[in-house]
Amino acid sequence: MGGNSFGKALCITTFGESHAPAMGVVIDGLPAGMAVDMDLLNSMLARRRPGQSHLSTARTETDAPQILSGVYDGRTLGSPIAVLLANTDQRSADYDSLQSVLRPSHADHTYMAKYGVRDPRGGGRASARETACRVAAGAFALMLLRNEGVSVNAYVSSVGAVSMKEEPLSVDTKAVEATPVRCPDAEAAALMMALIEEVKAAGDSVGGTIRCVISGCPAGLGEPVFDRLEADLAKAMLSINATKGFEIGSGFAGTTMRGSAHNDPFATEEGRIITTTNNSGGVQGGISNGMDIRFRVAFKPVATIAVPQRTVDVSGQPQVLTAKGRHDPCVVPRAVPIVEAMAALVVADHLLRQRMQGR
Amino acid sequence: MGGNSFGKALCITTFGESHAPAMGVVIDGLPAGMAVDMDLLNSMLARRRPGQSHLSTARTETDAPQILSGVYDGRTLGSPIAVLLANTDQRSADYDSLQSVLRPSHADHTYMAKYGVRDPRGGGRASARETACRVAAGAFALMLLRNEGVSVNAYVSSVGAVSMKEEPLSVDTKAVEATPVRCPDAEAAALMMALIEEVKAAGDSVGGTIRCVISGCPAGLGEPVFDRLEADLAKAMLSINATKGFEIGSGFAGTTMRGSAHNDPFATEEGRIITTTNNSGGVQGGISNGMDIRFRVAFKPVATIAVPQRTVDVSGQPQVLTAKGRHDPCVVPRAVPIVEAMAALVVADHLLRQRMQGR
Amino acid sequence: MGGNSFGKALCITTFGESHAPAMGVVIDGLPAGMAVDMDLLNSMLARRRPGQSHLSTARTETDAPQILSGVYDGRTLGSPIAVLLANTDQRSADYDSLQSVLRPSHADHTYMAKYGVRDPRGGGRASARETACRVAAGAFALMLLRNEGVSVNAYVSSVGAVSMKEEPLSVDTKAVEATPVRCPDAEAAALMMALIEEVKAAGDSVGGTIRCVISGCPAGLGEPVFDRLEADLAKAMLSINATKGFEIGSGFAGTTMRGSAHNDPFATEEGRIITTTNNSGGVQGGISNGMDIRFRVAFKPVATIAVPQRTVDVSGQPQVLTAKGRHDPCVVPRAVPIVEAMAALVVADHLLRQRMQGR
Amino acid sequence: MGGNSFGKALCITTFGESHAPAMGVVIDGLPAGMAVDMDLLNSMLARRRPGQSHLSTARTETDAPQILSGVYDGRTLGSPIAVLLANTDQRSADYDSLQSVLRPSHADHTYMAKYGVRDPRGGGRASARETACRVAAGAFALMLLRNEGVSVNAYVSSVGAVSMKEEPLSVDTKAVEATPVRCPDAEAAALMMALIEEVKAAGDSVGGTIRCVISGCPAGLGEPVFDRLEADLAKAMLSINATKGFEIGSGFAGTTMRGSAHNDPFATEEGRIITTTNNSGGVQGGISNGMDIRFRVAFKPVATIAVPQRTVDVSGQPQVLTAKGRHDPCVVPRAVPIVEAMAALVVADHLLRQRMQGR
Repeated sequence: MGGNSFGKALCITTFGESHAPAMGVVIDGLPAGMAVDMDLLNSMLARRRPGQSHLSTARTETDAPQILSGVYDGRTLGSPIAVLLANTDQRSADYDSLQSVLRPSHADHTYMAKYGVRDPRGGGRASARETACRVAAGAFALMLLRNEGVSVNAYVSSVGAVSMKEEPLSVDTKAVEATPVRCPDAEAAALMMALIEEVKAAGDSVGGTIRCVISGCPAGLGEPVFDRLEADLAKAMLSINATKGFEIGSGFAGTTMRGSAHNDPFATEEGRIITTTNNSGGVQGGISNGMDIRFRVAFKPVATIAVPQRTVDVSGQPQVLTAKGRHDPCVVPRAVPIVEAMAALVVADHLLRQRMQGR
Repeated sequence: MGGNSFGKALCITTFGESHAPAMGVVIDGLPAGMAVDMDLLNSMLARRRPGQSHLSTARTETDAPQILSGVYDGRTLGSPIAVLLANTDQRSADYDSLQSVLRPSHADHTYMAKYGVRDPRGGGRASARETACRVAAGAFALMLLRNEGVSVNAYVSSVGAVSMKEEPLSVDTKAVEATPVRCPDAEAAALMMALIEEVKAAGDSVGGTIRCVISGCPAGLGEPVFDRLEADLAKAMLSINATKGFEIGSGFAGTTMRGSAHNDPFATEEGRIITTTNNSGGVQGGISNGMDIRFRVAFKPVATIAVPQRTVDVSGQPQVLTAKGRHDPCVVPRAVPIVEAMAALVVADHLLRQRMQGR
Repeated sequence: MGGNSFGKALCITTFGESHAPAMGVVIDGLPAGMAVDMDLLNSMLARRRPGQSHLSTARTETDAPQILSGVYDGRTLGSPIAVLLANTDQRSADYDSLQSVLRPSHADHTYMAKYGVRDPRGGGRASARETACRVAAGAFALMLLRNEGVSVNAYVSSVGAVSMKEEPLSVDTKAVEATPVRCPDAEAAALMMALIEEVKAAGDSVGGTIRCVISGCPAGLGEPVFDRLEADLAKAMLSINATKGFEIGSGFAGTTMRGSAHNDPFATEEGRIITTTNNSGGVQGGISNGMDIRFRVAFKPVATIAVPQRTVDVSGQPQVLTAKGRHDPCVVPRAVPIVEAMAALVVADHLLRQRMQGR
Repeated sequence: MGGNSFGKALCITTFGESHAPAMGVVIDGLPAGMAVDMDLLNSMLARRRPGQSHLSTARTETDAPQILSGVYDGRTLGSPIAVLLANTDQRSADYDSLQSVLRPSHADHTYMAKYGVRDPRGGGRASARETACRVAAGAFALMLLRNEGVSVNAYVSSVGAVSMKEEPLSVDTKAVEATPVRCPDAEAAALMMALIEEVKAAGDSVGGTIRCVISGCPAGLGEPVFDRLEADLAKAMLSINATKGFEIGSGFAGTTMRGSAHNDPFATEEGRIITTTNNSGGVQGGISNGMDIRFRVAFKPVATIAVPQRTVDVSGQPQVLTAKGRHDPCVVPRAVPIVEAMAALVVADHLLRQRMQGR
């Protein structure tokens, strides 16, 4: 009941503290005989890695994944796949001074309240490094989805107050990866990068949003009551560090619309039933309808900043904290593959569940 | 794997189609010896019931709950509590004409894609009536929470483009229940009601948002990785019919803030560690920090409208649909107790889980 | 976590105390479109029912199942199937005197230790009546299995010291149902019935064993580590009231064999790989091998007897108990359909799980 | 749904093939702040290790456990504990010749039927080496139980036809560990060892039984319906390689008793309610009653033998197999800590679950 597992048909379990020798993930429930694409695994991890550009922390992680089990001769065996990620750049010393001070908007206080003990060497399980394990698992989910014609692509849709002017219907992955900020709109990307540089220079941080689009998903995935596709996606997204919101289809903006404008008319296209608009975001009644699944995730500004902050220590005494660790001024560019990974895990889980219908 | 259960420590399972003799819920995992408050159960159901005001559908449901098991002499036995809700006002005839037409933004199409069959008598499991079962279960969760000093209160924060000017820190439940629209701001409530009347007259529908505030929650609830408190709340909310978004604390607006402004400074109040702002929304690192848990849920305009709509039938032939069923022009006033119920189930689940720490 | 659910892909949840108005079961995860065989459901319940012969208690239950949901027009909808069983013959008075006396080898003492409260009207969840819900659910599992060519048949293999001389390879269901004791060996059946009559006359009870044979099960069902087919069968059987043991294939007797005699040689029959002996009991490495699955279950003598017994009351004071309720002198004849039902639920669960392999 | 996890409150997940670089286990749900006893962990692994005596295979495993996460400064953090066990003595060559031949009573055939692929380097997940991961996890469960005054001790009660004459009420662990066969009865132990030597010399194998006794378990653990303590123990035991049976309390022998002799009379001892006999085996109605929990497990003779055997290859062609690997002639002496580990995991799981009652 420690909540370190995710998924029902395809279930992953992550483990590891950021300053221990290694972290890892166990992936249980992948069918046997699936070809393993190491390039996809490595590129997913590379896109999440810190230090890929001047926009992110200098903390380096090699993230060379070690597959301990479940794969033989390039194919899955049907047994659990364990992937180990060594922690090569552990600088516990950076954190020593933090032992007794409660960092604002970090998990120090809540961990003490929950467990009564805390690993002072870093963020413990709250470390963003834990998400590398999810990305590794998500890469395997993407392999399964690709075989079924499903693609999952995310990009940065806003940084601070800088938003894309218009969001395209489909994702141009080349344009996404063209800049380190991972926004496919070149103009907006330039503004976003400038903003991140400015915030970084000020020792501060800024938030942003990520759009994710799932294409090629067959109609029929998701369960109608609690395990709705959007409910599982929402949980997946809100389980990522620093997320504060989720919306699908028309989202919060849709609350101001009239039903007559919001309803997505059905039509027929090449013998297939489609909708001519997509305010539903690809999900109706909790179940995919065959249109693109479109959702957006809100990330708060990262809590670790160089600006001095007022806080208290564990005994409640006032303190002024000036953090010295290495952290990103803006988390969204590196969070793009994390969002893709978690989305892929949700869709793959429901794809396997739907097989039980025997249809 | 049909996804009709919710919760790990406190697990509920709902069943029933809207046009069958009865629906129900089984609640498993409530501790023994807890006093059962029938008034709370009945008032929760009454607040969700259709036909309570001119703002909602005329469809009447008595919702007199029948407790079949798990309670003896006014106290829980520790065994599963089954609550049956008879469906007294079934008018299948209203739905007969819909059998072959795919209603826009309903689940007709996706159910066919998923199951290959469909109960033509109504919305099947997609019917909003299913949420009555959740409200009944949520009432039991609220009884448990009340014993621990936790309260859960929601209200309507916007209808269409009409929003409250300022959201209060605490909820005035009297003011919430003062008007049928369940907005505690009298001025906004009047505008909201006028808007709903206007939309109703036009045979149309409109969306809205609900704010929920959980007070008195002890620090330490929630698990740090996948089963974060906000992740489970997000899933709970997105599993409610017609929801399109969830945000906690600063939410989407927080994405434009700087970390130095967003971070919640710790301070001490009466020997207890608090934060002086609450952009975190009461949760840090996935775990409650003892402050109020504040989140907001987006509801789309209900899909059933009297305005004629273009669509297709199951064979893909174009059709014009004019719905005749009885439905609410705006769902948010009646969704308030549903949001409270689902929130209560999440917090109660984590409260029981935290007991396993033995602290 | 109250443990009232069973199964992963096909999950059932039972509820109800024996002396409440009704008990029931919710079956979640059955594929849509499956024809519902009411005759099978009714005959399974009839075979479990008390009062079917002079060998069992006079307590009458009609067990007319009411299907509340999940079925329309004779077919499953894919939604949860709720079956209600009314408790028509409740005689709480019989139990009044038992309120404070701890009945030997009943659950009175352990319920108090667990919950601190107890429903004095009967056995609570420990009542054998709970198994009627399992039988109803098992009937649905059998419908699924029958469509896949799998049959599940059990019979009484011993009562007290009276055993069948030789156990046949296949089950003659006609011979099983020929006598109320449900032993297909007419000679042994006569001795068993005489023994039960004798025990009944003495106000005492006696135990016995049930053999179950699952035929037509495809190779490949079961998971290799924890969710082995035999592990799930063992759990299913030991979750039935009054069971004390489980063995599969060679079982306890096999512990005295040499490997060279115990190993089942592979051979080919009509192009299909078979084993020429079946000490494995149809399962190897936790996975079905296509041969008959054969296991045996031990039932203790029922605890309720008319013979006066020494015990204590809840305050620890010595008491002599003379039970007055109506109970079977031997439970195994009526437990045959319960064993079949639980076995069917296990196999159906694994059959659905195996579909996720996509093979 | 791959079935590689076990437990609900305390959940373990194992991974790894026997011939890969390492195997491991993730333990989720252990409370924070618990002292970690490395000596207990190491001694449990040592007792399971092959090559500890002339009675077992010469295959050497060092089993030096590497704790990757969840422990800091000698105490649990509340986060998942990952333990890695390197596979140091991999001789895949021994297995090469087996690639296409189906070894009788092994999982070769069923793995192919299930997955369509197979890791030819060894037993895959069916390898007995997987149980080392369970023993490591069980050691942590034992640490938790010890803090609550619960002990778990097993011993060999029979090898082939050689049984202990009388089974003692309590376990003399010193006597158990006095001989490599782990039978506390010196006379029987000598006969058992002689039998194993004889069988080994013949290139054959033999089965046996293990008795397990859990003492100090508080009354109230276990759930009354499906998750009965004995049901979870039965599943745990039947999930161990080579097991064919489980019985608790009077077990199969109890089926021949009369209820008047089988019922365990209640009495009072030092103000505590006890039973004067223990045919129930410490569990009544699925819930522990405070008496010793006593059960017995049947192990078949190991399938790998040096005697030539008739079988077929994957294409169905007849073959004669003469195995060359290194395997134990009798598995029970080394299975003692595995039985203890799995039993400890079950009881610890229920101990944590019972905390949710808040009693």
